[in-house]
Amino acid sequence: MTTRTTNVRWGVLATGGIAATVSGDIALVPGAELAAVASRDAGRAAAFADEHGFARSYGSYRELIEAGADRSSEAGLDAVYIATPHAQHVALARACVEAGLPVLVEKPVGCTAAATRGLAELARERGVFVMEALWARFQPNHVRLREILSSGVIGEVRSVAGDLGFALPYDPAHRLWDPEQGGGTLLDTGVYPVSFAQGVFGGSPRAVHAVGVLAENGVDAEASLLLDWGGGRTARLGSTLLAHAGGAGTITGTKGRIEVAGPLHKPSHLQVWADGAGRDDEPSEVVDLPVTGRGYVHMVEHVHECLAAGLVESPVMPMSDSVAVAEVLDAALDALGAVHRDDDTALV
Amino acid sequence: MTTRTTNVRWGVLATGGIAATVSGDIALVPGAELAAVASRDAGRAAAFADEHGFARSYGSYRELIEAGADRSSEAGLDAVYIATPHAQHVALARACVEAGLPVLVEKPVGCTAAATRGLAELARERGVFVMEALWARFQPNHVRLREILSSGVIGEVRSVAGDLGFALPYDPAHRLWDPEQGGGTLLDTGVYPVSFAQGVFGGSPRAVHAVGVLAENGVDAEASLLLDWGGGRTARLGSTLLAHAGGAGTITGTKGRIEVAGPLHKPSHLQVWADGAGRDDEPSEVVDLPVTGRGYVHMVEHVHECLAAGLVESPVMPMSDSVAVAEVLDAALDALGAVHRDDDTALV
Repeated sequence: MTTRTTNVRWGVLATGGIAATVSGDIALVPGAELAAVASRDAGRAAAFADEHGFARSYGSYRELIEAGADRSSEAGLDAVYIATPHAQHVALARACVEAGLPVLVEKPVGCTAAATRGLAELARERGVFVMEALWARFQPNHVRLREILSSGVIGEVRSVAGDLGFALPYDPAHRLWDPEQGGGTLLDTGVYPVSFAQGVFGGSPRAVHAVGVLAENGVDAEASLLLDWGGGRTARLGSTLLAHAGGAGTITGTKGRIEVAGPLHKPSHLQVWADGAGRDDEPSEVVDLPVTGRGYVHMVEHVHECLAAGLVESPVMPMSDSVAVAEVLDAALDALGAVHRDDDTALV
Repeated sequence: MTTRTTNVRWGVLATGGIAATVSGDIALVPGAELAAVASRDAGRAAAFADEHGFARSYGSYRELIEAGADRSSEAGLDAVYIATPHAQHVALARACVEAGLPVLVEKPVGCTAAATRGLAELARERGVFVMEALWARFQPNHVRLREILSSGVIGEVRSVAGDLGFALPYDPAHRLWDPEQGGGTLLDTGVYPVSFAQGVFGGSPRAVHAVGVLAENGVDAEASLLLDWGGGRTARLGSTLLAHAGGAGTITGTKGRIEVAGPLHKPSHLQVWADGAGRDDEPSEVVDLPVTGRGYVHMVEHVHECLAAGLVESPVMPMSDSVAVAEVLDAALDALGAVHRDDDTALV
C-alpha cells in the first residue's frame, strides 16, 4: 500500500517527446506516482495517459492545475512537470505557483531573463518550490565532477570550455526554428554549456561576449560565447543548429583538468588529470557512472528530496542559477540581434 | 661527396633549447648541412658547434650573417634559422634579409604586428625567403588534416576551438615571464591555437574579443579569445601560463568534425566524424601519423623545397598568415592591457 505522506503525485503538462521520456523516468522513481497529464487536446492527453500509465488526463492545462491544487482531493498533486515548448514555460509555471503547486520546469525556464526572474520572485514570495529541469546536474558523472572540483585536485578553475548542438535543416515550421515557440540554438542547447560553466564558477559572469549568426527569420542559428567571470576566469562556449558539435567539455585548473566526454548534457565519462599530471600522462581518474533510466531519474529523486525536506529551492539547481544563465543567454541574444519572448497564452 | 647545388648550408642564431632541438632535426634532413652557429658568447657557440656538429661558430650574430652572406665563400650560407628569445627575432631576421640570406624565424616572428609586417614587406621588396617556424603546420597529422578539410567531408567549417599552455610558477627572471624577452602566454603558446584557427579559416578575423589576466609585472598570464571570422564562423581559443591546459583542438563543420588530440602544436592523432556521423558514432577516420625526428624535420624539408623552387614565401606558411596571427595577438594584448615590444639591440 502506498501512502500520501511518502508518495509524490506528479502532474505533467504537455504530451510531446520530452514529456514521454521524463514521464518514463518519473515512473522509475520510488514513491513517484503518475497522477495526471494535460494537453490542450483532450484526446491526446487521454492517449498519453493510457500509454504511460497516468491515472487521469485533462484537456487543458488550467484544469489540471485547478484540480491538482486541492491536495486533499482525489485529484490533488504534489508536483507538476512542465514539458511544453519553451515559450509557454513561465506562464504555466506561474499558474502552478499561484495554485501552490511545486514545479519542475523544463529548460530553459523562460525565453527571457525577465520572465525567469519574475517566476523566481513569485515562487519565493509564495514559498512554492520551483526548479529548472537541468537534468545534467543530477547525473552521477556530474555529481562526481562536483566532488572532484571541491576536492581541489585540479586547483583553482581558470577556464571552462564546451559546446553543444547539431545540424538541423532550416524549416521555420519546426519548433527549434520558430521564434514563436522559443526556437533558436541558445535557448535549446546553449543553455547546457552556459549552465555547465555557471555551475562551475557560480554566480554570474561580469561580461558576455557573443558572436553568431541568425537564420533568415531572425532566430539564432549559431553562437560562440566568451564569458568573463573576473580575475581572468573565463568560459568559451558554443551552441549550434548548423553544425555537428561534439558536445565535449573541459574544465582547466591551476593543477589539472577534467575532460567531459560525450555530450555535455549526458556525459558518457570524465577523465581527470589531477595534482599536476601532465597532458601526456594517463588520466589520474576516469569516471564512468551509468545513469538510471534515461538519465532523468536522478533529477526527479532530487525533487522528491527537496519536497520531503520542505525546501522552496533546490540547493543544487537554485533559481538564482537559472536566472544567471538566462541573463547570459539574454546578453548573447542581444549581441546577435535575436529577440525572444515568452508566450502568455498557454493557459487560454 | 656533397655538392653546393643540392645542399642547404644552415646557420643557426642562438644556442638555447629550441636551437638544439631544431638543429638535431635539421641534421636529419637529406641535403642539410649544419654549417655555422652563433651566440653572443663565443665559448657557448663553440661548445654548441662541437656538440651538434656545426662546421663553424661565431661569437656574434652579425659575424655569422656577414660571413654567410657571401655564398660563394667557404663560410657562405643558404638559410638561417633564428632561435633567440622572441623579442630579438625581427631585428635578426631583418639583418639576414638585408644580407640576402633566406630565413626561418622561430615563432612568433615578432612581438608586434607592426614588426612582423615590416619584416614581411622588407623580404618581399628584397625577394628574400622568410618563413615563420610554425612547425605544427608541416607535421603529417596536420597535412592530413588539411586534406580532410579540403575533401569537404565535414562540410563548411563553422567553428574552431582549442587551447595550449601550462602552469609555470611566476618568476619575473624567467624568459616566459619577462616582458623584455617577449614573455607572456600569448606570444609563446597563444600563437599556436591562433595560427591553428587562422590556418583553417584563412585571412584575418573581423573581430577579436579577448579576456585575460596579467601578471604583476604586466605580462599576459592567461587569455581566452573569441575570434569572429564573419558569417558566424568563430574560433574559441585559450592560452595560459597559469593552468594545465589540455591543448586539444576541435574543428566543427556543417557535416562533421575533427578532434585533434594531444597538444595542438604536435597532435598525437586526429579523430574524424565525417558526412553526418553522429557524436555517438565511432569516428569515420583516425589519423595517427608519426613525426620524423622531434617533428621539425617536415618543416625543414619544406624550407628546402621552397628554396629549391626559388620561392620567396612558403605557400603553406606565408608571411601574410604570420601577419594575420600577429594582428590577432596584438588585438588580444591590447584588450588585456599588456604591452610587448621588439628589441632592436640583438645585433649589437
